[in-house]
Amino acid sequence: MYYVDPVIRSFLRTKQPEGRGAYIRLDQNENPDGVPQWLFDETMRKVTPEFLSIYPEDTALTEKYASFFGLQADNVTLTDGSVVAMGYVIKVFGEPGKNLICATPTFGMYKVYADMQGMNTVFVHYEDDYTFNIDKLLDEINEETGLVSLVNPNMPIGNVYSEEEIKKVIIKAREYNAQVVIDEAYYYFYDKSSISLVKEFDNVIILRTFSKMFSIPALRLGLIISNKDNIQYVNNYKPHYTINSVALAFGKSIMDNHDRVVRELTDKFQQGKNYLLKALDDAGYEYLPTEGCFICVYPKHKTAEEITDQLKEKGILIFCGKGDSAGFLRITIWDEKYMKSFMDALVEIDA
Amino acid sequence: MYYVDPVIRSFLRTKQPEGRGAYIRLDQNENPDGVPQWLFDETMRKVTPEFLSIYPEDTALTEKYASFFGLQADNVTLTDGSVVAMGYVIKVFGEPGKNLICATPTFGMYKVYADMQGMNTVFVHYEDDYTFNIDKLLDEINEETGLVSLVNPNMPIGNVYSEEEIKKVIIKAREYNAQVVIDEAYYYFYDKSSISLVKEFDNVIILRTFSKMFSIPALRLGLIISNKDNIQYVNNYKPHYTINSVALAFGKSIMDNHDRVVRELTDKFQQGKNYLLKALDDAGYEYLPTEGCFICVYPKHKTAEEITDQLKEKGILIFCGKGDSAGFLRITIWDEKYMKSFMDALVEIDA
Repeated sequence: MYYVDPVIRSFLRTKQPEGRGAYIRLDQNENPDGVPQWLFDETMRKVTPEFLSIYPEDTALTEKYASFFGLQADNVTLTDGSVVAMGYVIKVFGEPGKNLICATPTFGMYKVYADMQGMNTVFVHYEDDYTFNIDKLLDEINEETGLVSLVNPNMPIGNVYSEEEIKKVIIKAREYNAQVVIDEAYYYFYDKSSISLVKEFDNVIILRTFSKMFSIPALRLGLIISNKDNIQYVNNYKPHYTINSVALAFGKSIMDNHDRVVRELTDKFQQGKNYLLKALDDAGYEYLPTEGCFICVYPKHKTAEEITDQLKEKGILIFCGKGDSAGFLRITIWDEKYMKSFMDALVEIDA
Repeated sequence: MYYVDPVIRSFLRTKQPEGRGAYIRLDQNENPDGVPQWLFDETMRKVTPEFLSIYPEDTALTEKYASFFGLQADNVTLTDGSVVAMGYVIKVFGEPGKNLICATPTFGMYKVYADMQGMNTVFVHYEDDYTFNIDKLLDEINEETGLVSLVNPNMPIGNVYSEEEIKKVIIKAREYNAQVVIDEAYYYFYDKSSISLVKEFDNVIILRTFSKMFSIPALRLGLIISNKDNIQYVNNYKPHYTINSVALAFGKSIMDNHDRVVRELTDKFQQGKNYLLKALDDAGYEYLPTEGCFICVYPKHKTAEEITDQLKEKGILIFCGKGDSAGFLRITIWDEKYMKSFMDALVEIDA
């Protein structure tokens, strides 16, 4: 028979949900409203048939992003979303047969990529009260460790790792020649970054995305920040022309207007978060504290599955926890109007 | 030291050219004008901040494309451009240690991906008159063969492989359990496709792109067509959310208006080609016959390098042949106005 990569031949992948446009989308941590209209209009003026006729050029945005965060251009490489970035990092730096250590629950693609790479995933569980004991993760780092992933804030739990905790992980990983991936997909919702650690340690790889705070998941723009050698290795592997020019144009506009964009979006987010937390408290719901744009809520009467299904019937999508997050409702936090629609429906359904 | 994939660690990649927007771009086989304005306007009306806030959904275009060509949806998978498609195919179906057979010169990424995969690239050379003897390629197919790549029409030479030749390759490859990649990036400039062979043989993989005739290279949209098993294997490997929503929207508009778009673009292309061939003949230039949107022209007096450099000074980019296509000027064929600018400059420079 024809050769097929033996891991890929039987690899099972989950299909992503579709047909979401008609719903209030609180299931995938997107901003349902998208970028501010003024930013959209300003950026789209650049987009013409001729603009779309030219192969993408990504140097300008790479330089702009790096310089904004006090880095050199060769500390940064752009990617077609941060899920693809994750794949590059595990392909290039993940030694087959070694361990990838991560919290559970966390973003599911770490295990998918580790499986494809022939790495073992070592899951570190939360405590019963959903706090995370970093010592349990530190204890797992040993000569079998290839990579450690810290999603900060971690999805779906919403906890964060302090700089002190992160440094302990980096230092112990370094003893065993392991690199630490710090996934800052939800940076900006939580304002502490580990970017400065890239200068201090040679085994730190940071992932970021424009899909969350910057509200353009449809365009696919993410990036990897690390030391120059690591970025060079990723660039040795990364196919050229993977980031489309519209994404690059939005990335440029966002960085040119960075503080205004962050302020406007953060204000909207924070209003929605304040509303939601108060409404959950008022309605007597238990939930986990969160530093992300999502929150895990315990149902009161019905099951998470029942509530998720009935919310969908009412035109609202949320994510029903599975596996290590089973029993929770995971709801995207954003504009107050959606938080109100959700709470009104929740209170009605979960009675 | 930290683990880095041993092939990738020292892999050398070429940097793509940038800063091309201000030039007449005849160096990368793009349509310098892009899509027709009416198609652009119609498609862009769908693009809003909310549209950009939703993770991409690619099923609708997959189904539409498949059905247009008489296939099932599970015969097709969309990709972030056809260069990425090529990478998927070589990763999934390319057995490390075996051979990838292709013509030389051809599109350079086949060898890059083969090298990364640990495959050997077997190059089959053209005859001295730049005709291609398919028997020489057939002779190379043996138990060491993993994949055969036929770019049809082949870039940069512009020759085509007949259906009879392609079938011979497929049948011989099948005897050795090798698959045949038929790269139809330049389909539409040459109107014969091998799509029907996907139904007839189980070792045929077709690649296509929206970057050439359909004029949206900036958006990154390509696809793989094969039997259902092969497509499933690629989908097992392909990360989700790699094709952005603006590309998908253009893909949908193009397929909804397929015949009109092809007619308008082909008319423009054909006028330009007619003009260019006549102008080259009139000016006494030798060139290779071509079925692609590019042509290889022999300089008369100066070297290809000198002419390429001096054209750039005059605001015109062309590709200067290297390696197996050294000595040629490779010029993108498209709208007559650019062909005229090129010819006027060429005649002045190459005197």
